[in-house]
Formats: sequence, structure tokens, C-alpha cells
Amino acid sequence: MSDFAIGIDIGGTNTKFGVVDRNGHIIIQDRTSTNEHETVQEFIEVLYAKMKPMIDKVGGPDKFVGVGVGAPNGNFYTGNIEYAPNLKWRGIIPLAKMISEKFDLRVKLTNDANAAAVGEMMYGCAKDLRHFITITLGTGVGSGIVIDGKILLGHDGFAGELGHTIIRPGGRMHKGTGLRGSLESYASATGVRETALELLAEKPEVGSLLRDYSINDLTSQSVFECAIKGDTIANEIFDFTGQILGEALANFVMFSSPEAIILFGGLTKAGDLIMNPTRKAMEDNLLPIFKNKVKLMFSELKEADAAILGASALIWD
Amino acid sequence: MSDFAIGIDIGGTNTKFGVVDRNGHIIIQDRTSTNEHETVQEFIEVLYAKMKPMIDKVGGPDKFVGVGVGAPNGNFYTGNIEYAPNLKWRGIIPLAKMISEKFDLRVKLTNDANAAAVGEMMYGCAKDLRHFITITLGTGVGSGIVIDGKILLGHDGFAGELGHTIIRPGGRMHKGTGLRGSLESYASATGVRETALELLAEKPEVGSLLRDYSINDLTSQSVFECAIKGDTIANEIFDFTGQILGEALANFVMFSSPEAIILFGGLTKAGDLIMNPTRKAMEDNLLPIFKNKVKLMFSELKEADAAILGASALIWD
Repeated sequence: MSDFAIGIDIGGTNTKFGVVDRNGHIIIQDRTSTNEHETVQEFIEVLYAKMKPMIDKVGGPDKFVGVGVGAPNGNFYTGNIEYAPNLKWRGIIPLAKMISEKFDLRVKLTNDANAAAVGEMMYGCAKDLRHFITITLGTGVGSGIVIDGKILLGHDGFAGELGHTIIRPGGRMHKGTGLRGSLESYASATGVRETALELLAEKPEVGSLLRDYSINDLTSQSVFECAIKGDTIANEIFDFTGQILGEALANFVMFSSPEAIILFGGLTKAGDLIMNPTRKAMEDNLLPIFKNKVKLMFSELKEADAAILGASALIWD
Repeated sequence: MSDFAIGIDIGGTNTKFGVVDRNGHIIIQDRTSTNEHETVQEFIEVLYAKMKPMIDKVGGPDKFVGVGVGAPNGNFYTGNIEYAPNLKWRGIIPLAKMISEKFDLRVKLTNDANAAAVGEMMYGCAKDLRHFITITLGTGVGSGIVIDGKILLGHDGFAGELGHTIIRPGGRMHKGTGLRGSLESYASATGVRETALELLAEKPEVGSLLRDYSINDLTSQSVFECAIKGDTIANEIFDFTGQILGEALANFVMFSSPEAIILFGGLTKAGDLIMNPTRKAMEDNLLPIFKNKVKLMFSELKEADAAILGASALIWD
């Protein structure tokens, strides 16, 4: 009888991992950088070195049913990461196989955002929902789409790449994908930073606390800190980001008519600053049959927890 | 034992209907105008007057299992047409109930585009597909989304309104919905006519066969006729329309990762003129994991047949 599962959530910047019990409690967790590891081999070595003591602490590998992994462009059907634009590791990476060989445990892998959606459905505010979409507003923009209680995988396992849908045709170039005007170019932490740099350059006459940061140090977090102090440009950045995000959400609603959209990730720390313009733009762009029906909310799970729990849930069945 | 079903396909301009047998053959069919009937009561009277002789011809109402209806904004769960922007009849119309009372037969109703997708899956080129999207390029732009062999209805029955997704934010105003920049504003017969009028006004210096038509007579059909004669502006209109349609299709692919997208409706008569720019724009806007994988094709069913067959299929179960 296996008592534990490992959940690993690989994000563009950081990887979070933990030991999870059958009741959905994270017993121990830790994190490591994703993008500081040049090769995936090196990354797996570091992961294993950090996890081995955790595994031993609860009784050794025999106590584990296996490992669930959420990763950008992770494919449930193949166990591969395929051409992830936000990772350094290029091409097709047989990650499930590589982790399985290193850990000597069964491994299942899916898209990181799908894993978060599963976590939200099992342990979060989507517990009673059968039709919802989760949007992760992190380094990139991820999405997990649940239809009739099941993760939408599509015919090849790649469904739900909503961050790469085009919302400003001909707009900002995404450095990872080469696509112009995708949602991720605007509504991610990276996008918010870029909007800040653009607006500061466009409006040299407008004073802003953001000008006190060096260009290297300016992040979406700086924008948040300045916005709550009432900085005009910082607030304008959130309004602009919310406008674009809300338009995109309206499009998603008209595709699958979900009961709720759940927002996760770093940008949601901005609270009403991002929620209010997003909700307004979403409602403004919906057909009447959809207006005032979709619950737009922030995840109630701790940021890392949903993804670790969701990833671990992959392996229980 | 019932041998026949009635299939009714209500479009923005015309309504097509027919008697269908258990093998999916349309025994008799006819059509009437949709938008010339001021009230829905009048419309149902005309439908009944035209269908009664058809029903009697094959043995009377006892031979019928019921009526399946595809209608704009038709809701499978409620049997209502709700706030259809392309119909004259406003608000919520309990159409299934009204037809059932008039015909004294069981009635099931769904979105017209969903009905076409069912027809395509049962009798058309989607016979072996479990993940596909149908897009109807008619007076408006309709869509039916099939996931794992089932029509996507969403939590309330309204999923699949892809014609109303925003693809040119702040763009052309849709007279029916008040939304700006929706796909339907560009990639419908109405949209093509509007693009023609815009381009002709913008480029008074460019000669065009389209200038021989009166503004009232200029339709998407005129644009097609001029384009095959090599008219520059007419060809430009199809390139523009295909560009926008292709971008929208790329977004849909990144949502649900279908095996195929099947195009229907009047605009598809333009063949390669619309297919080539659409395919190019779709591929240009896809992430590498989706490129050159999605079959983009025209329906092989006769235009009216898919919708009549699909509507009738609703009632067989």
C-alpha cells in the first residue's frame, strides 16, 4: 500500500515539488530554479538530490505510488515536454521517462496549467464545478480547461494553450514563440514589465515612482508596489493588462461557456487592481447570453500548492 | 415504429427543412425565408403549411419520431432561442414548445451550427473524427465544437459562439451585437460585403469590376464572381477575409487542439480564394506543436443537407 505521491510543478522560472499524502496534504515541499539549469539532465540531478532526503524521511521509495509532473507543454499522452517556448531546454524532452529512470518510480506528466486545474478541482474553489477554466498569470500565461469534469486534452494532448492565442493581431512580439500579439505577451509578469517600459518611454512627461527603479530591477512586483501608492502610470499598466486579459477571457467564455474562470499566479497578488479592469473588459465583450453569469475569481489555494497537489493527483489513479 | 424525423435548419436568412429517414436520407425538402416573417408565430404557421403535405405524403404524423431543430442561439437544455443577434425575433423564444404544440410532435432544438456538426459527424467528412470544429460561413459565422465525439454545450448549453469572439479589438462594429471586431463582422457574407464597400471607398483610384454593381446589389457572391475574373480588389477582399479567419482558427486550435476544422456555408463557394489565405494565416499564428497537423477542409455535404440531417439526428435517440 503506497501512502505518498510526489508532485512536481515545473514553471518557467521556478520548480516546486513536494510529498503529498492520500488526503491531499503536502507533507514536505521545496523549490529550485528551473531556468538556471542549462541541461535537463542537470535539472533532474538537482531535483533528485533535493527530493531523496524527503523520500527517505517518510519511509523510502516503497512508500510511494509514483511521481506526477506538471510542466510547460507537457503532454499527458507521450510524457514529453515538446517545444516549450518558456524553457531553455529545446525540442522534445522525454521528461517522464528521464525522471522515472532517475527516481525508479512510475511517472505521469501533463501540462503545468492542467495540473493546477486538477488541483483546483480536487482541493480548491472549483470543487463543485464541472465546467471551468484556470488561467495562470505567471512568467507566462498558462491555462487548464475543464469540460464536464475532465481536463480538455484535445486529440493529441496539447489543448489549452490559451496564453498563445492572439488578442492583438500584429501586436507585441513574443520572444519565445515569434508570434505577435499573443495573450502571454501582455498578461504575464514579463508582459507587465514590458508594458511598463513602453509606457515610461512613451510618456516621459508623466512623473512615476517606477522611474526610481533601474531597468533591470523593474518587475511586475515593482508595478504593483507603485500602483498601490497611487502611481498613475502603474495603475494605467494594470488597466491596460486587465483590458487585454478581459477581452481574451470573453473569447474563452464564448468558446466553452464555463461556470467560472479561476485566476492563479504572481499577477493575481495585485488583487482588485487587475481584477476590476479584467472583469469589466470581459463583460463588455460578451454576448448578452453570457453576461453576468461567469464567476471570475482568484484561486484560494496557495500559489504553489494547487500545482503540486494537481500534479500528484495524476498518479493516484 | 417511427420511420421518419423532421429536420429544420433555421438560418439568419433562410430556413431549410426536410423529412429524413432512419438511414440519413433526405426524402423531401424545401425552404422558406426566415427574416421575412415579422413574428415567430407567423413563421411557424408558414413552416407548418409547407410541411403538412410532406408529412402526409409519407404516411402522416404517426410515422414520425419527432422534429429536430437547429437555430441561431438555440439552447439544447431549454429548447429556447435566446437573444439571437441575427434574427428579427428578440428576447427568449420557446421555439421547441411552440413547434411541438403546432405539429403535435416531440421537438428537440439546438444551435444551428451544432446541428451541422452533428450532421457532419454522422454523414459527412467528420465520420471518423472525435475532435473537430465546424465553422459555418453564412449570413453570420456559426460554429459547432466536437470534443471526444460529443458536441460541446458548456454548463448552460451556449458553448460554441465562435463567430462572436473578438479578433480585431476595437474593430468593425457588429450591428446585431454591438460588439467591435468580432469574427462574424468580417468572415460572414455580410462582412465580405462590408469589406468590399470599405475597400472600394478607400481606393477610388483602383479600377474594379465591383464598381459596376449598385451598392444594393453588391454581395459576397459579386465579390466571388469578380475575383475569379482576376479583379484586384475582389481578390484583396478574400485575402483580407482569409487572414482574419485564419488568425481566429489558430486561436481555436490552441484552445481545443482538434484534428480538423470543417468549413461550411456560402463563402466556401469561393474555394481556394478563401481557403489559401485562411490556411496560411492559421499556420502562421500557431505554436510549432500545432503546425501542419490540423486538417482544414470544406464540408463534403451539400450546404443544406448537413444542417437538416444534423437537426433530424437530435430526435432519433
